[in-house]
Amino acid sequence: MVQCLTAQLDAAFAALSDATRRGVLEQLGRGDASITELAETFGMTLTGMKKHVGVLEQAGLVSTAKVGRVRTCRLGDDGLEEAAAWIEGRRQIWNERFDALDRVVEALKQKEKIDG
Amino acid sequence: MVQCLTAQLDAAFAALSDATRRGVLEQLGRGDASITELAETFGMTLTGMKKHVGVLEQAGLVSTAKVGRVRTCRLGDDGLEEAAAWIEGRRQIWNERFDALDRVVEALKQKEKIDG
Repeated sequence: MVQCLTAQLDAAFAALSDATRRGVLEQLGRGDASITELAETFGMTLTGMKKHVGVLEQAGLVSTAKVGRVRTCRLGDDGLEEAAAWIEGRRQIWNERFDALDRVVEALKQKEKIDG
Repeated sequence: MVQCLTAQLDAAFAALSDATRRGVLEQLGRGDASITELAETFGMTLTGMKKHVGVLEQAGLVSTAKVGRVRTCRLGDDGLEEAAAWIEGRRQIWNERFDALDRVVEALKQKEKIDG
């Protein structure tokens, strides 16, 4: 599925905004699972879990493959990398800004000591 | 605003799932701004921007203060930290898992060489 980074980030963050879907990602981090297994683990109907897995798959966070009548889910390859990279980029810039503010506050404190 | 971590993560990721809101966070990373300035930058109505800022504020990603008739927006203190920590935790576990898989594949390759 080809989509631009903006749409990819929209989809990834929207997919992560639900506790059950985050739970599914944690579960799949421990091993692949069928939709039936996931539905049981989270006490949901098959239909409900299919919907959640669909949202995760659309966002590239999960991939699924059907063998016979069983659809197995596993973690996607890099959907989370984009989201992580975006957050990480912002944190770096902001931390630099907060550090700069800290230095200004520190300088003001020193000045106060000298003046006072 | 006191809310449990699950609700906090839901709100933070939902807030990040919109390109304009991510743009507002990037903009505020470069300096505080009024809602009017943000609305102009993103070519939106005041009402539209107020809505976006409200979602960011609810998620703890932005804080606002009204002085006279101007509401100034700045980055929130730690809303993004929770979201970053969640993603980072998952990535570490998954990378370990992928590394373990790599080792299995490598071992199988070696075995094939010896057997073949």
